[in-house]
Amino acid sequence: MSIADSHDSGHCARARAGCRRPALCSVGWKMSGCRLVLILFLITSLRGSGAIPPHDEVARMARYIVHACDWGSVATISTHPPVTGRPFSNIFSVSDGPLGKGSGQPYLYLTPLEISVQDMEVNAEASLAMSLAETDYCRKQKFDPQSPLCCRVILSGTIMTVNKTEIDFAKESLFSRHPAMPDWPHDHGWYFAKLNITNIWVLDYFGGIKTVTPEEYYSVKPEYEGNLTGGKKS
Amino acid sequence: MSIADSHDSGHCARARAGCRRPALCSVGWKMSGCRLVLILFLITSLRGSGAIPPHDEVARMARYIVHACDWGSVATISTHPPVTGRPFSNIFSVSDGPLGKGSGQPYLYLTPLEISVQDMEVNAEASLAMSLAETDYCRKQKFDPQSPLCCRVILSGTIMTVNKTEIDFAKESLFSRHPAMPDWPHDHGWYFAKLNITNIWVLDYFGGIKTVTPEEYYSVKPEYEGNLTGGKKS
Repeated sequence: MSIADSHDSGHCARARAGCRRPALCSVGWKMSGCRLVLILFLITSLRGSGAIPPHDEVARMARYIVHACDWGSVATISTHPPVTGRPFSNIFSVSDGPLGKGSGQPYLYLTPLEISVQDMEVNAEASLAMSLAETDYCRKQKFDPQSPLCCRVILSGTIMTVNKTEIDFAKESLFSRHPAMPDWPHDHGWYFAKLNITNIWVLDYFGGIKTVTPEEYYSVKPEYEGNLTGGKKS
Repeated sequence: MSIADSHDSGHCARARAGCRRPALCSVGWKMSGCRLVLILFLITSLRGSGAIPPHDEVARMARYIVHACDWGSVATISTHPPVTGRPFSNIFSVSDGPLGKGSGQPYLYLTPLEISVQDMEVNAEASLAMSLAETDYCRKQKFDPQSPLCCRVILSGTIMTVNKTEIDFAKESLFSRHPAMPDWPHDHGWYFAKLNITNIWVLDYFGGIKTVTPEEYYSVKPEYEGNLTGGKKS
């Protein structure tokens, strides 16, 4: 069997064995040996740039994505006809902290006029997905947006209003990354909110979705390099 | 009353009056007169570039966004513990046609191994959101991802397998925009799917969400310029 024919190469078999929930392996990608060597070389050489953690450091990868992206898609259960009771996707600006000072906690700037926010007032359960497709990373590496190598994180939890002890950091986090926000219409009832995270799934490599606990997520030490552009295109 | 003080300028009042569902106006943005004149100038001058339709041509705008973007966020109702029954957001590559030949019909390339696809097998109702934040447009115009000027479309409907009469176009649509797809693992059960659209909401300007009927959406003639990059960054 040549390298090109070895679909079930040792690396890929180990990746699948490492998948914590085989039933949930969203993509059990198998690669020819030559392509795998090339991709590993690319990832290693890119890793030398320092911008993205190793794919097997999953908690750190989750923190990296959350900090690099400055917007995400939020899913709610709609309360608006004709899609009442159905899943609903919308776009929100997000920040977990000023550049280089990410906390892992995604903050949002919300108005009761927003249809998804009206959904949250009835059912605060939500899911926030962020992908490096929002940055230049995937395009520069020629990773398709749906490829596992175009890393993404999916957070689930409940949307909550930020309390007084946290409001200063929420404000600094959002306004530093979204300088237009302070000038948004002052009579729209804007308030600072956050996603109280209960579930974290990461897809950053072959072998399927990986779970990170909130404890692992918040305790890991992210390593932000000087070339982190925080979602902005270079 | 000076221009700067005229929060309820004639333009903004007309915009709100034109909001088809005042109760759903997600952002009834009001602008000072000077800022409004500046933004109108910017939008008009950009319009001269031909790439984006006028904001009041809402069906055409919806078609523009769907064609310009090559990925989106799909919301489903999760069937996976511990988030069973909750809204779930995920990232999918999308295409409504080869560049310059958009049909308005979003096609997807799905595998039963994908967790969201497993959700769809139980409940095919889904929402697909696409935003010009995925392209260079919003960044170049300095529009925050959550600003109405960073145009987005939210489609609701059901995910269906593409039938035989449509499969060739679905394949051409997806593979021309996502050249990696044909090489994705052949044993993953990939199939061509589409979102059967029943509801279309567009946010592309101040004054709130605007509704487009599927009939309006599919019958409008999109005008694709030679400089349409289809989601790819210039």
